[in-house]
Amino acid sequence: MRIAVDAMGGDHAPKEIVKGCIKAAKEFKDVTLVLYGKEDAIRAELTETYENIEIVHAEETIKSDDDPVRSIRRKKESSMVKAAYSVKNGENHALFSAGNTGALLAAGTLIIGRMKGIDRPGLLATFPSLSNERAVFNMIDVGANSDSKPLNIDQYATLGSYYSNHVHGVSNPTVGLLNNGTEENKGSELSKAAYKLLKENTAINFIGNVESRDLLNGVADVIVTDGFTGNAVLKTIEGTALSLMGVIKSAIMDNGIKSKLGGLLLKDSLGDIKNLLDYSKYGGAVLFGLKAPVIKTHGSATEEPVYHTIKQIRGMLESNLLEDLIQHFETRD
Amino acid sequence: MRIAVDAMGGDHAPKEIVKGCIKAAKEFKDVTLVLYGKEDAIRAELTETYENIEIVHAEETIKSDDDPVRSIRRKKESSMVKAAYSVKNGENHALFSAGNTGALLAAGTLIIGRMKGIDRPGLLATFPSLSNERAVFNMIDVGANSDSKPLNIDQYATLGSYYSNHVHGVSNPTVGLLNNGTEENKGSELSKAAYKLLKENTAINFIGNVESRDLLNGVADVIVTDGFTGNAVLKTIEGTALSLMGVIKSAIMDNGIKSKLGGLLLKDSLGDIKNLLDYSKYGGAVLFGLKAPVIKTHGSATEEPVYHTIKQIRGMLESNLLEDLIQHFETRD
Repeated sequence: MRIAVDAMGGDHAPKEIVKGCIKAAKEFKDVTLVLYGKEDAIRAELTETYENIEIVHAEETIKSDDDPVRSIRRKKESSMVKAAYSVKNGENHALFSAGNTGALLAAGTLIIGRMKGIDRPGLLATFPSLSNERAVFNMIDVGANSDSKPLNIDQYATLGSYYSNHVHGVSNPTVGLLNNGTEENKGSELSKAAYKLLKENTAINFIGNVESRDLLNGVADVIVTDGFTGNAVLKTIEGTALSLMGVIKSAIMDNGIKSKLGGLLLKDSLGDIKNLLDYSKYGGAVLFGLKAPVIKTHGSATEEPVYHTIKQIRGMLESNLLEDLIQHFETRD
Repeated sequence: MRIAVDAMGGDHAPKEIVKGCIKAAKEFKDVTLVLYGKEDAIRAELTETYENIEIVHAEETIKSDDDPVRSIRRKKESSMVKAAYSVKNGENHALFSAGNTGALLAAGTLIIGRMKGIDRPGLLATFPSLSNERAVFNMIDVGANSDSKPLNIDQYATLGSYYSNHVHGVSNPTVGLLNNGTEENKGSELSKAAYKLLKENTAINFIGNVESRDLLNGVADVIVTDGFTGNAVLKTIEGTALSLMGVIKSAIMDNGIKSKLGGLLLKDSLGDIKNLLDYSKYGGAVLFGLKAPVIKTHGSATEEPVYHTIKQIRGMLESNLLEDLIQHFETRD
């Protein structure tokens, strides 16, 4: 397995990207990491040589505020574009970046290309489920598209089901449609039309409408929604969790010695919660529906999230996720 | 001020509704509460007589699973419908219910009627802001409509600004459009079109796009969005906060004596947080854009939330919120 890594993308590139790659390369001997970026800068972080780390020099870098489509078209010598072409050409099997999300979407769609049967790729993210029934759930689309059609949501359901099955080992994963009520007749024009398609989709285990209130309680293995709503929900989960943890920290620190002592005694337990909520351990967001795995991790990613993302990509490659999906959509017609 | 109360709506009606009304009637002598519902059942909860509590018998009750529009049209003798007509006829000045939300929306729109200049009423909810800059923020529409138009969102901005100013005393409240990015060119077709209208709206202090990640940090006084996204975000905030508090409780209880002791020491501080997050103290959700205040509180509401909602309605009536809005929309053309 060969993974093309955009070593220059993200707030802490190339340092943390390289560190994460070293950790992964040491553990996964069956993976070769091909680092794209400024050779000097990458080599400065690589203290020793590793059999399964290669470097491909790329003169340019796409910045976080660069226009996505324009930068992909013009910066042909950038680490992201060169890495994407290496996947298109079959030299490498997956693309990983912590850089400009819009540019990565553009690179994925324009260079690597869509899978047959997929009209628009969607972004899939994995979240911890706080119920006992399941450890995680996946939501797609969390923001690749600002406007989705019923057809797109139906395709996301198939993609998400395959992901849940292949990567998380869930057999016959349940799929819920995010809606503003659980009854079948509820919803916007879009969600009502998507419901009809999902009900007819024989490749999935559709359980009907679900409400965002129940997501973290593990209401389903796969949640499908349009990219606008999914993005709002993703960021609301993040924002609410962060705000609450901040408030709890203040409550411990600003309420005198009694609270401080209580906080000290609870330190391990609260640390467990922080760990539970830290969904970077499930890897990055998958730009899903392309001919090869394209994974975006947080711009702020450090060694650990980079390592987890490579582990995730390895899981995708090892399980033949893309091959099985490609076959599904090809034999369907 | 006379408030028509649907005494039969909600999981704990009429008991808790009546209890909340008694508490409010004792404190607010300038408010007369007119309770609609089964006279016997209401009287059984009213241990004494209060000068400012009246009862109007209503034979029927709209149930939580009744079809909204049909029940409003057919159950003419229901507490909700009779209360709504009393507001339409000017006998009472506002309508309050903890009952069937859809039916209340229908009663508000079909019986009380829309304010001139408002195409579709929106549901406004008030949330705690966890920042120092502001104590609360309002979001509209959190679910009155499943499909909103740019025009609706623009009208919500005016409604929300007046609410923030009149009820929370914020001068020149800031308005943010919920979007999937903060840049002006971001968003769905809907949010991009809404942005243009909001930019031209001289009745509001528009600060541009905001992301749901920043809501609880108090990014603006008023957040406007379509009803589908607003509903998803409202329920995500609720669900995430509840799930997290549940996880914290388990962490304290299930991790041995050290954690239990820590939890004991932190009890007051964690109680403060629960109190901070309890947004029932800001009253119910306002079905906004009608000729009179129509307020929905949680179906599970008990004495305290009912009391707070009456306090909120009193604030709306006292501040001439509706009169000022009606004047605004009438003099605008």
